[in-house]
Amino acid sequence: MRAAAVRHLKTDGSAASQSEIDAAVESLKALKIEAGAVARRLQAAVSTTSGGGSEAFRQAVVNTLERRLFYIPSFKIYRGVAGLYDYGPPGCAVKSNVLAFWRQHFVLEEGMLEVDCPCVTPEVVLKASGHVDKFTDLMVKDEKTGTCYRADHLLKDHCKEKLEKDLTLPAEKAAEMKHVLAVLDDLSSEELGAKIKEYGITAPDTKNPLSDPYPFNLMFQTSIGPSGLLPGYMRPETAQGIFVNFKDLYYYNGNKLPFAAAQIGQAFRNEISPRQGLLRVREFTLAEIEHFVDPEDKAHPKFSDVASLEFLMFPREAQLGGEQARKIILGEAVSKGTVNNETLGYFIGRVYLFLAHLGIDKDRLRFRQHLPNEMAHYAADCWDAEIECSYGWIECVGIADRSAYDLRAHTDKSGVQLVAHEKFSEPREVEKLVITPSKKDLGLAFKASQKMVTEALEAMTEKEALDMKAALESKGEAEFQVCTLGKTVAINKKMVSISMVKKKEHQRVFTPSVIEPSFGIGRIIYCLFEHSFYTRPSKAEDEQLNVFRFPPLVAPIKCTVFPLVKIPKFEDVAKQIAKSLTAAGISHIIDITGTSIGKRYARTDEIGVPFAVTVDSTSTVTIHGQSTWADVMWRFPTHSVTANDDAADQN
Amino acid sequence: MRAAAVRHLKTDGSAASQSEIDAAVESLKALKIEAGAVARRLQAAVSTTSGGGSEAFRQAVVNTLERRLFYIPSFKIYRGVAGLYDYGPPGCAVKSNVLAFWRQHFVLEEGMLEVDCPCVTPEVVLKASGHVDKFTDLMVKDEKTGTCYRADHLLKDHCKEKLEKDLTLPAEKAAEMKHVLAVLDDLSSEELGAKIKEYGITAPDTKNPLSDPYPFNLMFQTSIGPSGLLPGYMRPETAQGIFVNFKDLYYYNGNKLPFAAAQIGQAFRNEISPRQGLLRVREFTLAEIEHFVDPEDKAHPKFSDVASLEFLMFPREAQLGGEQARKIILGEAVSKGTVNNETLGYFIGRVYLFLAHLGIDKDRLRFRQHLPNEMAHYAADCWDAEIECSYGWIECVGIADRSAYDLRAHTDKSGVQLVAHEKFSEPREVEKLVITPSKKDLGLAFKASQKMVTEALEAMTEKEALDMKAALESKGEAEFQVCTLGKTVAINKKMVSISMVKKKEHQRVFTPSVIEPSFGIGRIIYCLFEHSFYTRPSKAEDEQLNVFRFPPLVAPIKCTVFPLVKIPKFEDVAKQIAKSLTAAGISHIIDITGTSIGKRYARTDEIGVPFAVTVDSTSTVTIHGQSTWADVMWRFPTHSVTANDDAADQN
Repeated sequence: MRAAAVRHLKTDGSAASQSEIDAAVESLKALKIEAGAVARRLQAAVSTTSGGGSEAFRQAVVNTLERRLFYIPSFKIYRGVAGLYDYGPPGCAVKSNVLAFWRQHFVLEEGMLEVDCPCVTPEVVLKASGHVDKFTDLMVKDEKTGTCYRADHLLKDHCKEKLEKDLTLPAEKAAEMKHVLAVLDDLSSEELGAKIKEYGITAPDTKNPLSDPYPFNLMFQTSIGPSGLLPGYMRPETAQGIFVNFKDLYYYNGNKLPFAAAQIGQAFRNEISPRQGLLRVREFTLAEIEHFVDPEDKAHPKFSDVASLEFLMFPREAQLGGEQARKIILGEAVSKGTVNNETLGYFIGRVYLFLAHLGIDKDRLRFRQHLPNEMAHYAADCWDAEIECSYGWIECVGIADRSAYDLRAHTDKSGVQLVAHEKFSEPREVEKLVITPSKKDLGLAFKASQKMVTEALEAMTEKEALDMKAALESKGEAEFQVCTLGKTVAINKKMVSISMVKKKEHQRVFTPSVIEPSFGIGRIIYCLFEHSFYTRPSKAEDEQLNVFRFPPLVAPIKCTVFPLVKIPKFEDVAKQIAKSLTAAGISHIIDITGTSIGKRYARTDEIGVPFAVTVDSTSTVTIHGQSTWADVMWRFPTHSVTANDDAADQN
Repeated sequence: MRAAAVRHLKTDGSAASQSEIDAAVESLKALKIEAGAVARRLQAAVSTTSGGGSEAFRQAVVNTLERRLFYIPSFKIYRGVAGLYDYGPPGCAVKSNVLAFWRQHFVLEEGMLEVDCPCVTPEVVLKASGHVDKFTDLMVKDEKTGTCYRADHLLKDHCKEKLEKDLTLPAEKAAEMKHVLAVLDDLSSEELGAKIKEYGITAPDTKNPLSDPYPFNLMFQTSIGPSGLLPGYMRPETAQGIFVNFKDLYYYNGNKLPFAAAQIGQAFRNEISPRQGLLRVREFTLAEIEHFVDPEDKAHPKFSDVASLEFLMFPREAQLGGEQARKIILGEAVSKGTVNNETLGYFIGRVYLFLAHLGIDKDRLRFRQHLPNEMAHYAADCWDAEIECSYGWIECVGIADRSAYDLRAHTDKSGVQLVAHEKFSEPREVEKLVITPSKKDLGLAFKASQKMVTEALEAMTEKEALDMKAALESKGEAEFQVCTLGKTVAINKKMVSISMVKKKEHQRVFTPSVIEPSFGIGRIIYCLFEHSFYTRPSKAEDEQLNVFRFPPLVAPIKCTVFPLVKIPKFEDVAKQIAKSLTAAGISHIIDITGTSIGKRYARTDEIGVPFAVTVDSTSTVTIHGQSTWADVMWRFPTHSVTANDDAADQN
């Protein structure tokens, strides 16, 4: 699940979460008091940059991508739809290469159970997951034209512009605006509305007044079947399809933990006003892994394979302390507790290897830990793989330990127990907490609220229950926060009995924790395009030529075949080579236009073809590679592409 | 585009189509008059069978598929949604293998331009394609409960039941019902309603009266963006994404014809009441090819590669003559004109090779030509690859020559010219038809209808115009059918001038024809499952074991590794072999449970694992293959899977 979505889902408000949220808010408030500079660094860390140079670079990349049909704005002849893009032929090939490698690197390598579920999803599933109620962005409307805007975008733009351009801005006001930017994602609807009013922000296009902010659900809604009575949505993530199948998948895996399920597929977000071009779109491909694990044992047998990797990490403390991301050895990050557990650490390492192998620049890739306020209350820990591009540091993969949240939510809603069993070799004596609310006494005290208080008592964690037991024994009464009521009530000894009882158990039944690496494939590909792009002067130095330097693994076309001069017998050799490349499953183009060899190279550079076979004569060919054969060997272990081995000249 | 959809789109009612439709209706009427038996054969050919034996077989297949998680009814813990299925791990692997082979066999082999467009589609695109107005099924409602049914299904069920079970049915009535079944797909809303009334058909569950039939659009509707003002649909096919990109793709291909574009992706159909289990679903994967070709030259340079193929074909004449499908050499079918042109023939041949390679039984695969009444009026010719399974002969691939229809529709709606150019080496003198309606005279004669008559005159084909010219010259007047008015009008010499004018032209500008092979991937996979399935007695002959005999190409898991006996050192060897299989990209499972080798084989048979490596000792392994190594070589050209080559024993 992407960070923004997680944010929308986090305010569930159980007793356990409230304290964490409070702590996060406190830490953010502290930032403002202690040092405005730190708040600013925080903002720079989580937000986007906008240098003039990077925008020119981006324009060059995007122009090349669109001109060579890596991307096409969808339905262009009908003037398009914001936030929808097609992959044209080379883009489509890159995507298919990235997904094939993802399957090899994750699904096959880890023996994951891949599934493929529909995009159309009935409401009940997304009600259970929280998306129907919480998957929203706050929106404001131009009160006259009805044009919609994201409330936080308008406030952000206003503050940024003031800070950048208003030279008369008092220091105090500047500090306040910096603070607003730092806490933007945490502002409530009311707080956002108040700031918009206070700063006098109007609709950008018309300067008309704006409505108060209100939540807009980001799911595309539809109706399943002809009756109109079964509402459905286009899934906002693929994960729910895996969670609802947990029981069958656990059985398929021989009722053993841990195991991982994976899914590649389309997901949908009906953005209010898509910005950031190819990075924020209304339909995108996700590749998600749900690794189910015993919450009491999050060790990973293969962790040692990745423990010695060293790469840029940006732990919570470094962010709050105003430091930069720095190189950390993964094994140390886990042993010191910076990363919560081995399994989470293992996936961080595997994601690093995946992205590095694709050609993402290691110096512009960092793993940033979520701050407490960014993280869902149930999450044990969460790290984003962020890639730096012209838009700033972009979240491309989220790796979260979501604990038991999702399986519990579906267990509650469906009534089907999504649990795992650990059979003991012999029965064990265990102490079990027994909470017995007295409905009669609670009813007398709380009347209509009795049911909610009872449920809250029954839902206490062991620690909460034991604390209450101690308070009841020492003071005869205990304070108890009932979130569903939104208030604290007083509980006395009569109302509940709490005891630890000894029992013999033959097995342990528990809800597995889930560790979820979730890949935004389109974002990874876009960043890869930026990292692979450079310009070089033409031979005559009269123009700049565009080059994508793709690793062979991702290159849309692996090889170009051209006859050095345009004569029939060279063309015949070229066609023969092309035929054997096809048979070997190697994508290629054959360029038999008569233009200069330099121009033909420039054309292939622009779509990132790593190898070229030039037909020099009817018996010899020259093979040129931008990269090493070792790279191409991953995909094509042993095929020889030379028509004439003796004469082949590899450089 | 699937046949059902084509049927909904066919009644466009241009002058050209009307005669064809009339002819089709006549030929169907003729069937009734000539021989009831022929009508019945026709019905058997286009409809489904239901033998007791095939249903038991189907149940055995489906049970195995669901038990081994090839499929899972989606959202099962919430009691599912009709017409939505997940692919579980082995099903997902089969699908991914089928798609990988599709890409190799079509995209790579033919150098097609693959694109990847969004599922969310704005209304304007599907308005142009005709789906908004015509992509409907006729529905009736239970007048009391509101439950919806497909009108044709109820009528079909009623007639079938009567014919099968009512022993007192008079011969005349039986003949009539057979005729109804034969022409079911061609009945209008009024005709369907009249038959339902006449036969006294009521709602199946409640016996309540039914509403009149009315059209229900089968697209899932949604709304794009927050304003609610931009209606959209989940695409019913992937083809439109290619058509709207024609201009860019043509440019990408160096402004040369022919070329093909391809797309694999999800498509959606909000079925009224899905039946036929896995064959009629609400979301499915399509793989579509749009091959653009000069309408004046539909030769194919590689046709000779497939000309000698011989397989079951079922031409129009054979169907109308009550014959069976028979083996025909493809080259002869094209040269005799049974198949309209070489390019269409080439794709029929390639589709045959594709399906045969996947493991579809050649004796249960036929290519059936559309009857005139099944075909869209603009289509030049259309053949379905039909596969026989327990549901009867199922359309799995449609291969249609759609002429210029789609590109013209989008040209008209978008105003962007989706055309190709052929530059002449030197200017050519051409005769051009010029039709000049006289708006003044037409206005006097037809008043408010003048515009429609004018447009109809301008839209005449060359042949129609020349016929009219001849009639005007000989008789001074001509009859002219104006479809948009729904009547025939009289045109005289004053109202229109028709002439052939000589012009010098430097290039020819034309709308390309499109030949569209469209693959229902889920249907192909389901038929493949049935064709690969058989049962064998267990060793003790006390039970029937299920076996999927997949070719290695599609097998979800290529290889099982098991130690012959459960001892640690055998397990170590097994794990070592598993590791090298992973590195080579070969999916496998390792079975180290201590159960008998026979039981372990039975388990792998049930998910169709073609190869097994048995660890007999620490230095030798035995490799068993159900199939030949040649098959697996397509995917893994040269990798050796033996841990110890000398000792490997291949049988």
